Amino acid sequence: MLGVFCLTFDVLSSLLSFSCSLVVEAKDGTISVASAFAGHQEVVQDRDHKFLTQAVEEAYKGVDCGDGGPFGAVVVLNDEVVVRCHNMVLKDTDPTAHAEVTAIREACKKLNQIELSDCEIYASCEPCPMCFGAIHLSRIKRLVYGAKAEAAIAIGFDDFIADALRGTGFYQKAHLEIKRADGNGAIIAEEVFEKTKAKFHMY
Amino acid sequence: MLGVFCLTFDVLSSLLSFSCSLVVEAKDGTISVASAFAGHQEVVQDRDHKFLTQAVEEAYKGVDCGDGGPFGAVVVLNDEVVVRCHNMVLKDTDPTAHAEVTAIREACKKLNQIELSDCEIYASCEPCPMCFGAIHLSRIKRLVYGAKAEAAIAIGFDDFIADALRGTGFYQKAHLEIKRADGNGAIIAEEVFEKTKAKFHMY
Repeated sequence: MLGVFCLTFDVLSSLLSFSCSLVVEAKDGTISVASAFAGHQEVVQDRDHKFLTQAVEEAYKGVDCGDGGPFGAVVVLNDEVVVRCHNMVLKDTDPTAHAEVTAIREACKKLNQIELSDCEIYASCEPCPMCFGAIHLSRIKRLVYGAKAEAAIAIGFDDFIADALRGTGFYQKAHLEIKRADGNGAIIAEEVFEKTKAKFHMY
Repeated sequence: MLGVFCLTFDVLSSLLSFSCSLVVEAKDGTISVASAFAGHQEVVQDRDHKFLTQAVEEAYKGVDCGDGGPFGAVVVLNDEVVVRCHNMVLKDTDPTAHAEVTAIREACKKLNQIELSDCEIYASCEPCPMCFGAIHLSRIKRLVYGAKAEAAIAIGFDDFIADALRGTGFYQKAHLEIKRADGNGAIIAEEVFEKTKAKFHMY
């Protein structure tokens, strides 16, 4: 493939011996030189810090404006900020208008696409299950977050924030009655998929 | 307390003996007569079926309109439909515009409140993690759903739908790199909460 340098492991090792802290091997077995220099880690760290700082700035801005809670998010495409947003729950009277969800919506509108698979998202705080679901659905490729859920929970935010990244689900069901329809209700609901599958394109 | 009828268990049992299939005891020990008649279960069943059918109708409508996937949701307050919505992902170029999220947003706007704690939601299909998070955040008190996640997955929808109600989190992380900021990034992000907590009202 054009543009790929082939190096033996010996040559690579000697190249890296003076500066390497990490050799990155991709799924296809390719060893990445660019990622292997210690300096690259610092560049990534500086870049991440720059965008995370903007997410944190948004968190403050949202509170100052009275728009909602202290949470910010930035969507980045190829080192450029697509959108920077904050929590808009109060302003929009919308409990789904968390910073990450708002940023994903706005970025999709701006880029006119429902997938953000080339994008990264920087969030001032660990995403709650709703936001983490939205990140997954948007196909964003990378998430960098700042505060752990516990920092938000400590000042009174919902414990369920911690459920997403930890793969737990303790809090979401606590105050909700959940009923799965049975009988005819279940049948008509399940039929929907078979009856419509030829009528729309999967996205 | 005014309006509460006190019945001995013997009297209650004799009252219910001809028609009862279930005695419901609330957390405070109150035994509910209204819920105890067999006929009540049928009324609930019929009511649930009526609203679930509307959610299923929305699922078909959304596909017919080309708005998105075959999913519908209805928000109900005191036996009245507040909103009935369907998946708007394609129409709105918004991967977060699932039926349930759309219904919650619309209901909040219509009722001009960020909490729907007196409302129920009827969903044509088991909610995905994003939608289930949104249901939790809106404080909706009751969820009735029709199809199991597997019916949607069978025609190609994302496996992660099944994660929410089952409390699992296998699929959401599969294609995502996740990094928690360290050093100064983590510090400035965590400081947000302490520095803003006096400036906004918890919602």
